[in-house]
Amino acid sequence: MRIERSAMADREWPGCAKSLKGVILDLCGVLYESGEGDGVAIPGSIEAVKKLKESDLQLRFCTNETQATREKFVAKLQRLGFDISVCEVFPPAPAAIAVLKERNLRPHLLVHDGLVPEFDGVDKSSPNCVIIGDAAEHFTYQNLNEAFRVLIGLEKPVLFSLGQGRYYKETDGLKLDVGVYMKALEYACDLKAEVIGKPSPTFFQSVLNDMQLQAHEVLMIGDDLLNDVGGAQHCGMKGVQVRTGKYRPSDERHPAVTADGTVDDLAQAVDVILRQRGR
Amino acid sequence: MRIERSAMADREWPGCAKSLKGVILDLCGVLYESGEGDGVAIPGSIEAVKKLKESDLQLRFCTNETQATREKFVAKLQRLGFDISVCEVFPPAPAAIAVLKERNLRPHLLVHDGLVPEFDGVDKSSPNCVIIGDAAEHFTYQNLNEAFRVLIGLEKPVLFSLGQGRYYKETDGLKLDVGVYMKALEYACDLKAEVIGKPSPTFFQSVLNDMQLQAHEVLMIGDDLLNDVGGAQHCGMKGVQVRTGKYRPSDERHPAVTADGTVDDLAQAVDVILRQRGR
Repeated sequence: MRIERSAMADREWPGCAKSLKGVILDLCGVLYESGEGDGVAIPGSIEAVKKLKESDLQLRFCTNETQATREKFVAKLQRLGFDISVCEVFPPAPAAIAVLKERNLRPHLLVHDGLVPEFDGVDKSSPNCVIIGDAAEHFTYQNLNEAFRVLIGLEKPVLFSLGQGRYYKETDGLKLDVGVYMKALEYACDLKAEVIGKPSPTFFQSVLNDMQLQAHEVLMIGDDLLNDVGGAQHCGMKGVQVRTGKYRPSDERHPAVTADGTVDDLAQAVDVILRQRGR
Repeated sequence: MRIERSAMADREWPGCAKSLKGVILDLCGVLYESGEGDGVAIPGSIEAVKKLKESDLQLRFCTNETQATREKFVAKLQRLGFDISVCEVFPPAPAAIAVLKERNLRPHLLVHDGLVPEFDGVDKSSPNCVIIGDAAEHFTYQNLNEAFRVLIGLEKPVLFSLGQGRYYKETDGLKLDVGVYMKALEYACDLKAEVIGKPSPTFFQSVLNDMQLQAHEVLMIGDDLLNDVGGAQHCGMKGVQVRTGKYRPSDERHPAVTADGTVDDLAQAVDVILRQRGR
């Protein structure tokens, strides 16, 4: 059964693997499922990361994770058993801080408590913009209303959203993601948010720059059809979806985005890639 | 000063008042401002309602109020000093209950505790639709996530929103309204909500039916440019905006909706109407 499915996957994205020079992996839903404590590693994914690292492919991790600082969630992945280091991981918050500096903006934060330390060195007095991340339980009516009042009180309201995901899967079920609250504030204030994170082309490009590779040399593997697969394809990369995390069968007949391949999980994706490369 | 402004208002909607047979008033932001306890009556509005009732014009109240049952909030308005009775008031919840019966639907409710009794007689087992109202502090992450999970689990998800307002004004500032959370769930589930309440034409028509009047014979007065004024105009009524409640100066240069008149408050609107009618 496993062999049969792999054979199918082979036919779905032929040729692509041989010309690859790098792979970008999403984290949540691909490497692990978040939930109580550290969450759980998805079966086979620890070994799959190890195999990629042993190959001649460059490897980076690109995530819209905003519930903790980069140091904290990389440490969590290491505890789960992954061979991963901070400099290989690209989350939205450091990118947002660069934008704030560039444009001389002082943020009001509507983010998870775990992310607040990432903004320690940032001037937050008299805010002239709002940043929302995946605040989860911190998305209370009062907190959302406070962010709304800051925006509606600005002459030129600026809203940054750390990602635009609809939902993700934790061990106890689907959870609303930051994009839902981005849309809420967009409607309340009649504005368009600037997304920092996937699927923003600027964000993907910063990862490609770090790899010193061209888009067509790189494959993105994620569980989010629109933000991982569609976003990567929009930049000229290949995009493969795993059937773990937030994957839903209806993704395979989406009217706008078709993955370059759909595989059961990361382990299968890596097996196919490495076999096609003849290693 | 007062006379000068009224004279201006006269020029803005000339002639309309003489052909009127009925007036529909919004409640919150026109008669009163909500807030701690019962809120406060807007100066002059108690007398303005009295004058309209003594005139030959028919009078109804059309509201998107969904924080309490109709009986409860009419009693609150009576305590504030308004001459108003339950049968003159049209809120969304009773209209929603009629739709549920007609289409054989069982709702999951995401509404304010105060509205729950309105749905006492409604079968809520194995829900096959979601109704959201202005739940205010009850719009917790957990409650919104629960409504999301019900919708995403349905083969044909149906979302009813009791109004689509962006925000309203309470005595302590602006507050996010139900429309913001409607947009959030629309995005999360990739669907379009059905709005029950203003500006739904069906909803306005039910008030006109009760008055037995044609749309062109009726004037709507509200503080919400899009849902009161624009909604009424879309049905063929005249729409006048008051500079109380959620009114903002930018409303007077809105790209899509232009009120038939803009007045300082309900008292001024009623003075102009009755003077133009020569009474």
